[in-house]
Amino acid sequence: MPDGRTFIAVIGTGAGSGDAQVARIAETVGREIAKAGAVLVCGGLGGVMEAACRGASQQGGLTIGILPTNSRESANPYVRVAIATGLGEARNALITRTSDAVIAIGGEFGTLSEIGLALKMGKPVVGIETWELAKGGQPSSAIRRAGSAEEAVKVAIELTSSNP
Amino acid sequence: MPDGRTFIAVIGTGAGSGDAQVARIAETVGREIAKAGAVLVCGGLGGVMEAACRGASQQGGLTIGILPTNSRESANPYVRVAIATGLGEARNALITRTSDAVIAIGGEFGTLSEIGLALKMGKPVVGIETWELAKGGQPSSAIRRAGSAEEAVKVAIELTSSNP
Amino acid sequence: MPDGRTFIAVIGTGAGSGDAQVARIAETVGREIAKAGAVLVCGGLGGVMEAACRGASQQGGLTIGILPTNSRESANPYVRVAIATGLGEARNALITRTSDAVIAIGGEFGTLSEIGLALKMGKPVVGIETWELAKGGQPSSAIRRAGSAEEAVKVAIELTSSNP
Amino acid sequence: MPDGRTFIAVIGTGAGSGDAQVARIAETVGREIAKAGAVLVCGGLGGVMEAACRGASQQGGLTIGILPTNSRESANPYVRVAIATGLGEARNALITRTSDAVIAIGGEFGTLSEIGLALKMGKPVVGIETWELAKGGQPSSAIRRAGSAEEAVKVAIELTSSNP
Repeated sequence: MPDGRTFIAVIGTGAGSGDAQVARIAETVGREIAKAGAVLVCGGLGGVMEAACRGASQQGGLTIGILPTNSRESANPYVRVAIATGLGEARNALITRTSDAVIAIGGEFGTLSEIGLALKMGKPVVGIETWELAKGGQPSSAIRRAGSAEEAVKVAIELTSSNP
Repeated sequence: MPDGRTFIAVIGTGAGSGDAQVARIAETVGREIAKAGAVLVCGGLGGVMEAACRGASQQGGLTIGILPTNSRESANPYVRVAIATGLGEARNALITRTSDAVIAIGGEFGTLSEIGLALKMGKPVVGIETWELAKGGQPSSAIRRAGSAEEAVKVAIELTSSNP
Repeated sequence: MPDGRTFIAVIGTGAGSGDAQVARIAETVGREIAKAGAVLVCGGLGGVMEAACRGASQQGGLTIGILPTNSRESANPYVRVAIATGLGEARNALITRTSDAVIAIGGEFGTLSEIGLALKMGKPVVGIETWELAKGGQPSSAIRRAGSAEEAVKVAIELTSSNP
Repeated sequence: MPDGRTFIAVIGTGAGSGDAQVARIAETVGREIAKAGAVLVCGGLGGVMEAACRGASQQGGLTIGILPTNSRESANPYVRVAIATGLGEARNALITRTSDAVIAIGGEFGTLSEIGLALKMGKPVVGIETWELAKGGQPSSAIRRAGSAEEAVKVAIELTSSNP
């Protein structure tokens, strides 16, 4: 593996405005990923993705944005390496495929799809203030819950190490 | 639109064995889709996908299987038109993209990803014995619940008509 | 394989107007594919794709259009089964992947990419009035030349049979 | 655009062995790309891709490998940022989509498909000892010929600047 570092995906809604708390969490998650020496992967757009990239880049971390669009210019300004896939929503599968673990923060339906894709691919998923899953009234433990941004990154990296 | 018929995706686990009740529901869903004059779209593999295709083909319905593999021979025997995408899990986005509504039956993580993709694309999702979603302890109403296979198909087609 | 028939892709430019001779060839190719009992696969748009689908549908043949867009309504009126992939040009790989052989008629750069993809995947390519390839001044025999629409379909089907 | 640098794709066969001269050209192309301050994009595997990445990394350049496989570990050792797409050959469209210009060196059928995709997307293509294209016996000038690795990189960057 060329870059021996762990790749952690941060997923969450791109709707830029809105939830200041979610943005704060995302920025801290990004910062902690960079501090841990891991690479941040995301969908490259605004909202949670931008906040996480901003946090990582403040620590000099590497940020990768896998865009749904045809143009690298769609990326938020904190993406270091932008990949313009032109695949639309199908690019969600690439975000989870190329990552070793996923942290879901808040999130709407796109985030839900990425949670499903990551779990299907056997990648650990850590969640903060995100979707809760159940079947037949029984809560699912597929998403590991974290109470803070710091804990989320710590758990994601631990799960990656134990899940090579 | 060439084939003026409604395209309904049936999503659910491919794990063939297991749940006889889920298979029965899937087969009835397939049959009702064909009886309603709609086209059945699925991932083309076994389990729920095969049961639904079997039901539709018993009624002479058209069944489309959008496969993750490189070979049409991966399709279950009741797929009429097999598309070998070679895209792996990224093909999930094509199943929801080309359909007008989605019926989720049982299901594991792949199904969860397809629910998320369909909702993200603004397609109605009807669920039977499938994932339950919540955020912050509040149940989400994004998935329309149906109590029977017949009701699921009826609701899916109604939602499609009102959501052109 | 569910539909035991051979799948033949017809590739060529979507630019609708222009070359009446190319359109005539494409229509005949479509007709011959249907007469041979094979399924016609194409990119679903206008130009060569539409002419070929028109020819096939005049013979009651099955036509599949694998669209780059998000909507089945982009398909030409002679596509029987439209798949809206939302993948843009990346859908070219699906056209060749799901087909047993490829017939290239005229064609611009998109057609060239599909010729390359088909050859890379080991699928026979038959050409009429299409790209000529060479390396180091030596003509390549990778594309089998056909002098007429009828011959192109005959050769494509023969190559498929001998190349299971 | 986050990384303001020009992205140049280097395409060519992955078959590792064989042509020492092609490998030398590829390595020099990679080196010149890095010296020009541009980013090298490729398919991430061996052969031409590996030689080009080796050249770029000797100059401290950034190298991106967009892999067809499910695992970043498929990348050659000189890829700095590996993206595991899991898309198979469909990933060729991503290499050209995310690049500003393409340099084709030698090459087999996969390279031919990437030349077609790049030209279809309106990206300049510079070729060294690669496919020659013609239609109706008339050579096509779509691929800009370069006589040396140095010239290829110079022309690719010039064409990018004039083709924003």
